[in-house]
Amino acid sequence: MADKVEIPEHVRALLDRPLLVNLGTVRPDGAPQVNPMWFVFDGEFVWFTHTNVRQKYKNIAHEPRVSVSIIDPDTFGYVEIRGVVDHIEDDPEAKLYQRLSERYNGSPTTPDDAPQRVAVAVRPTKIVGR
Amino acid sequence: MADKVEIPEHVRALLDRPLLVNLGTVRPDGAPQVNPMWFVFDGEFVWFTHTNVRQKYKNIAHEPRVSVSIIDPDTFGYVEIRGVVDHIEDDPEAKLYQRLSERYNGSPTTPDDAPQRVAVAVRPTKIVGR
Repeated sequence: MADKVEIPEHVRALLDRPLLVNLGTVRPDGAPQVNPMWFVFDGEFVWFTHTNVRQKYKNIAHEPRVSVSIIDPDTFGYVEIRGVVDHIEDDPEAKLYQRLSERYNGSPTTPDDAPQRVAVAVRPTKIVGR
Repeated sequence: MADKVEIPEHVRALLDRPLLVNLGTVRPDGAPQVNPMWFVFDGEFVWFTHTNVRQKYKNIAHEPRVSVSIIDPDTFGYVEIRGVVDHIEDDPEAKLYQRLSERYNGSPTTPDDAPQRVAVAVRPTKIVGR
């Protein structure tokens, strides 16, 4: 794939932790939107769970470029991962939500809106920050 | 002023704390950018210190709409403040930086890039979240 980036070791270490990150998207009217999100990184993609009825989904359908801000709670250093939505998978059993709720809360839960759930795969294109 | 919003009490309480927030801007090429920032709220504007040579400054000069994501570290609830850059003031003595470094670190410091410092006043236009 074009412009695949190397993930430095200290960034990989941050990505392995269940940190609340901030996902920046662009609304169809051109204004920015920022929301805290759970995520997991599989070595290639940063994965987020969304529903296909919320504003963030409309945003990435319109503008696939996103930005992920990660703050290291120990050092207050930060990393910004710029990326692009590579693909979106239907996830009507909310398997990604279950995986993330286990990662963040210790036990998997299934949300009421499971039928609307999608798994969003973000491909990093640039790493900024310390 | 048009579309001035009421700041609910629980949002005001968050704004009074020295929390690291995430500022979303839009780059001139249309992609989002998210960066952690110090801030202070004066009852009307959310103030940020920038320099006039960095990318974020170019972004807001091009697209004045911004988004501020605030996570409550106690409850993990969050608030998104959408707003617009109302005005930018030159701040060559870095008075805002001094005020913010005192708010966040307990003692005021003056950055080496003081001559390039500006104070950015964001007017909230919409409050989203819990």
